[in-house]
Amino acid sequence: MRIIVAGGDGFCGWPTSLYLSNKGFEVGIIDNLVRREIDVELNSNSLTPIASIEERVEKWKELTGKEIQVFIGDLNDYEFLSDVFQKFEPEAFVHFAEQRSAPYSMISREHTIYTQSNNVLGNLNVLYAIKEFNPDCHLIKLGTMGEYGTPNIDIEEGYIEIEHKGRKDKFLYPKRAGSFYHLTKVHDTNNIEFAVRSWGIRATDLNQGVVYGVNTKETSMDSILANRFDYDGVYGTVMNRFIVQAGKGLPLSVYGKGGQTRGFINIEDTVRCIELAALNPPESGEFKIYNQITEQFSVLELANIVKEVSKKYFDIDAEIEHMENPRVEKEEHYYNAVYTELKDLGLESHLLTEEVVKDILQLAIDNKERVKEDVVMNSPSWR
Amino acid sequence: MRIIVAGGDGFCGWPTSLYLSNKGFEVGIIDNLVRREIDVELNSNSLTPIASIEERVEKWKELTGKEIQVFIGDLNDYEFLSDVFQKFEPEAFVHFAEQRSAPYSMISREHTIYTQSNNVLGNLNVLYAIKEFNPDCHLIKLGTMGEYGTPNIDIEEGYIEIEHKGRKDKFLYPKRAGSFYHLTKVHDTNNIEFAVRSWGIRATDLNQGVVYGVNTKETSMDSILANRFDYDGVYGTVMNRFIVQAGKGLPLSVYGKGGQTRGFINIEDTVRCIELAALNPPESGEFKIYNQITEQFSVLELANIVKEVSKKYFDIDAEIEHMENPRVEKEEHYYNAVYTELKDLGLESHLLTEEVVKDILQLAIDNKERVKEDVVMNSPSWR
Repeated sequence: MRIIVAGGDGFCGWPTSLYLSNKGFEVGIIDNLVRREIDVELNSNSLTPIASIEERVEKWKELTGKEIQVFIGDLNDYEFLSDVFQKFEPEAFVHFAEQRSAPYSMISREHTIYTQSNNVLGNLNVLYAIKEFNPDCHLIKLGTMGEYGTPNIDIEEGYIEIEHKGRKDKFLYPKRAGSFYHLTKVHDTNNIEFAVRSWGIRATDLNQGVVYGVNTKETSMDSILANRFDYDGVYGTVMNRFIVQAGKGLPLSVYGKGGQTRGFINIEDTVRCIELAALNPPESGEFKIYNQITEQFSVLELANIVKEVSKKYFDIDAEIEHMENPRVEKEEHYYNAVYTELKDLGLESHLLTEEVVKDILQLAIDNKERVKEDVVMNSPSWR
Repeated sequence: MRIIVAGGDGFCGWPTSLYLSNKGFEVGIIDNLVRREIDVELNSNSLTPIASIEERVEKWKELTGKEIQVFIGDLNDYEFLSDVFQKFEPEAFVHFAEQRSAPYSMISREHTIYTQSNNVLGNLNVLYAIKEFNPDCHLIKLGTMGEYGTPNIDIEEGYIEIEHKGRKDKFLYPKRAGSFYHLTKVHDTNNIEFAVRSWGIRATDLNQGVVYGVNTKETSMDSILANRFDYDGVYGTVMNRFIVQAGKGLPLSVYGKGGQTRGFINIEDTVRCIELAALNPPESGEFKIYNQITEQFSVLELANIVKEVSKKYFDIDAEIEHMENPRVEKEEHYYNAVYTELKDLGLESHLLTEEVVKDILQLAIDNKERVKEDVVMNSPSWR
């Protein structure tokens, strides 16, 4: 299967590209490399040194004999996107190529406008390119569990049947997103649902939880293939950030009470979920939505896990520090998400074991001289 | 009260500006005049000759002594918008300034991108300007009943309480919009709800139905004040289009079976609803949503009303012609919308009487030489 991974140079996109290539998919990467530029803007970095995309795919070919085509360009450049569709003729299009940081979207008006414009309009271009060049091409779109917010009822997988005044209908699950970034994924979901309904194209939306972990079997094959490891307050996801704080001897910074509960997933499962989606395309005119998580934790539970592993395996005394919450969110709430669809398709979860935390912590300790302390807590305020 | 009417040169915005000015509001109009340019793009026109915005406000001052300030510029130009907020210091901001045609948004990829970019990003700028310059300023945002689509349960006013697996929560009513234009209003609603929740600003969303009618008491005072009258397949709303077809001796073109049912409102009620919203601002951190309609009709019912009035008062034999539906929509469906909130605030509806239809038809007949027949049926296909 010819499959495009848009955003294939990024944190999820790069390991996904290698995983799919290894599994025999013919992979093409689209990336505009903007994530590397944002490191410069924020004065942040990947804790792990990362090679250029050219070095990465060259090394991959050298090690495995498998070729990954790279198309450097922007989804918001429709001429570029049209060229890729005509040259590569994708049968599936994995769309990781959105600005993915909630804090980044809240830095300023300009960052909000950039995030909504880049994400929503770029995704519209992808929908139009599928319609124009290959209406059978399966869009595999990355959404986020953050679209749902923290409702007081169970979070279903994308849809909910509502009974109201004696009548019934099935709707997209109503959303309550927590940032202008998360809202772009809500907007995308609504735009995709309309395009599928009106044009009869096919799409899968993967509402992914917070990803932790860094490397996969494939990215571990050589240091040139290493994945990026974000730990800053803007792009670092909470588990990875706690681990880097522990490795560097910094306190684990819990926002507010820490009762914020979310769905989580190991990067090793992310790549498998994309494969499962690709192998199980919806019918034409069908829009599948899965919740891509394997476990739920509160932020404070995660901090405690990191604290324990730090002590047990590395004799590090990690302190937990409750700080003022830069976000507007509930710190104590009900949270219960359904996530059975991907398991039914064959996902065997890599859960958050001590071993997993230990490995990431080892990586953090190995690279601790690269930590820029001033970016660990650089989240902007939501207010 | 100092009130901005953004889009104040348009079909709803102009009569609203005059109505509010007449009622003693201090009115400032923002408009980029793009609607007049789109007439050139589509080779369409207003059936009624319309004066320039400068002539309009000059005539208004001459007749009433009341001044309306005009700011020519674009909401997507934040510097311009900031200037207006600093100079005019609005206490309320009525936002009509979005691309409002569903067919226009479906003409091409470029028209989709323009519509979503113009509407969603422009509205984000308004939210940021309120936050930056006057967090107490009341945003009165025009939404559309088209956000809801045609659900099989009753349409509530913006919110719905859902009971699910023994637990309850209140959500924004889940939407199923019918075009990329209607989707922009869904995106706006979601963005506004987040801004209100996070920043504590105040907003009212008016989910307006299909507007019919042309002139109000104020726009009827002088021909220079006349409102625009759209009848083309792109900007003309269904009732006004049927009336122009009858006046011109053309068949009334019903899309498909004509069972499509929607909420409708007279332009004379539109202007009053804006006043009611302005006089009843929400608390800080509150987001009110009203369904701004006064009656429900199916498309075929409207065609029959126009047919009867044409015969009875003008001896015109208007034929009803069912044509292939350019839209993707249900042609037979349940439809029952709640619309009590604005009535509770004091709205006394102008209903769709024979007299009302007769007056619009007279206007259409008076101007029938201006009808460009080739634009009456120029809707693009949704597919």
